[in-house]
Amino acid sequence: MKIDAQTIIRGNQLAGARLIRQLEEGDPAGIELLKRLYTHTGNAFVIGITGPPGSGKSTLVNCIITDFRQRKRKVAVVAIDPSSSISGGALLGDRIRMRRHTEDDGVFIRSMATRGHLGGLSKTTRETVLVFDAMGYDIVIIETVGVGQDEVEIAQFAHTTAVVSLPGMGDDIQAMKAGLLEIGDIFIVNKADSPGADDVVLQLRNMLEMSSTLANDWHPPILKTVAVESDGTTELVDAFLDHHQYLIASGKFGEHNFKWEFEFFRQLVMQMAAERLLDSQKDSPAFLNLLENLKQRKIDPFSAAEGLLKGMKSKRINA
Amino acid sequence: MKIDAQTIIRGNQLAGARLIRQLEEGDPAGIELLKRLYTHTGNAFVIGITGPPGSGKSTLVNCIITDFRQRKRKVAVVAIDPSSSISGGALLGDRIRMRRHTEDDGVFIRSMATRGHLGGLSKTTRETVLVFDAMGYDIVIIETVGVGQDEVEIAQFAHTTAVVSLPGMGDDIQAMKAGLLEIGDIFIVNKADSPGADDVVLQLRNMLEMSSTLANDWHPPILKTVAVESDGTTELVDAFLDHHQYLIASGKFGEHNFKWEFEFFRQLVMQMAAERLLDSQKDSPAFLNLLENLKQRKIDPFSAAEGLLKGMKSKRINA
Repeated sequence: MKIDAQTIIRGNQLAGARLIRQLEEGDPAGIELLKRLYTHTGNAFVIGITGPPGSGKSTLVNCIITDFRQRKRKVAVVAIDPSSSISGGALLGDRIRMRRHTEDDGVFIRSMATRGHLGGLSKTTRETVLVFDAMGYDIVIIETVGVGQDEVEIAQFAHTTAVVSLPGMGDDIQAMKAGLLEIGDIFIVNKADSPGADDVVLQLRNMLEMSSTLANDWHPPILKTVAVESDGTTELVDAFLDHHQYLIASGKFGEHNFKWEFEFFRQLVMQMAAERLLDSQKDSPAFLNLLENLKQRKIDPFSAAEGLLKGMKSKRINA
Repeated sequence: MKIDAQTIIRGNQLAGARLIRQLEEGDPAGIELLKRLYTHTGNAFVIGITGPPGSGKSTLVNCIITDFRQRKRKVAVVAIDPSSSISGGALLGDRIRMRRHTEDDGVFIRSMATRGHLGGLSKTTRETVLVFDAMGYDIVIIETVGVGQDEVEIAQFAHTTAVVSLPGMGDDIQAMKAGLLEIGDIFIVNKADSPGADDVVLQLRNMLEMSSTLANDWHPPILKTVAVESDGTTELVDAFLDHHQYLIASGKFGEHNFKWEFEFFRQLVMQMAAERLLDSQKDSPAFLNLLENLKQRKIDPFSAAEGLLKGMKSKRINA
């Protein structure tokens, strides 16, 4: 099958999946296509959902998809949580266990392997979101597991970040929440029919009041859900759309998009500049000598990099 | 207190802690000092320990420290697991709950915040390991939580990676293990006095036999431990030292070190080259125009980066 810009823009899922794979593999053809698609992006509303393993994120995402579909929005999901049952575990490949939505053309779910993407997870996630955006998905959900730093990096790509908590979390999880507090636009207490749900809501409210977030225009709501019974998920989707409205009205939606694009651009400049610098030194005796000294620890990497940069000239570009 | 190379090399912990903080903050004074320390590094044996939350990694690390101390090795620990009880949770700062070793000059424990280090966790971890190395620690243990990609990135900095499993892990965890299988040099089944421990050992053995690792010279051992009772931890430390011997005899120890240094060097080249390129365009009308087009999505980030790179010239460096 040939994939071209029109096929993607028309929302062909096979073509979309193929393009995403090309981008994951760093295939230049994929990048060329993404360049042509770029002017068709910037419309999707990107929602990040993060929380610890076992907090029911996947069930929640299922409900959110159903609700957005009832509101006639097209929804795409990037599942980065390796234990996600949405993706059936990215490590097991794309065996999608989610049955309800697989027959629906307005839903596209893509799991991403978190392995073998050293330092590239952010890049691939950003590119995947751009592909979904070009395909005409109104909503793109990024599901990540809330341990470590992944979810913070990924939150960079979300207009709205929802943090999922659970009743009965131990001290350790509370500690994590302190970090998640800063990135949350919406807080969800899932499994809210379990004992202790109100305690978690209270704790979250207290933590939010102590933090600086109250000084902002947007006051993060705390919502209780029972995802397995679709309880509270309509209110959650309302909250997402409220935040979307807020972002657009305040100009922050466009600001977010430009910040991402500029960062993407800066990363590309870094890669391309370093590649060109290293390429120009190929087989240069001075460079080989530099590497040998690095190997023997006669020179440190900082001084070696400064040495290499001596070969670089930069002048202003023309209009 | 003045921190200089000699103070660090003599192993002063206050000076070491201060230098690590400087490096975390990107303080140029810290980098200058690290440059001078560099020739004193390359000796430490770096062990990565990873596993899911609740697998008892911290207790295990405690036992490993005790054992290495009995063998007269100096041990430093970088705890990156946000829920680690070794570090008391990096998010809670450096409140070290571990009491047994705090009075011991031959042990240095440092927790690292995984938040606010976007893309910088690897860099800071590497720099911290170098500081410990220069301080004369024979063993550096990196403790990470085995969810997401952090531990894979961190495994890049470990000569030996140990993966901790538990009896009674569900399917989700088994899925994760498939990814961890590739990075493990040693497998630990902790809490081995619980039912199902032999099943996990068997599963791991089967998975290892199916994987390509058997083609290597090193066949990863599977060890059973009960860390709370210090059971099996001496055998574990023996296995670490066996792998250390194997790496040195095969030349892989030095290869690892050089791979890390080269990657560190390449990252520095990327940053420095991009900074210089962007700096040289400051207030350039053509560049401001480029950014405006990027903002309005009239140009894609790839083409914008290519445009900027036109201003860059690279020639060979001299010997």
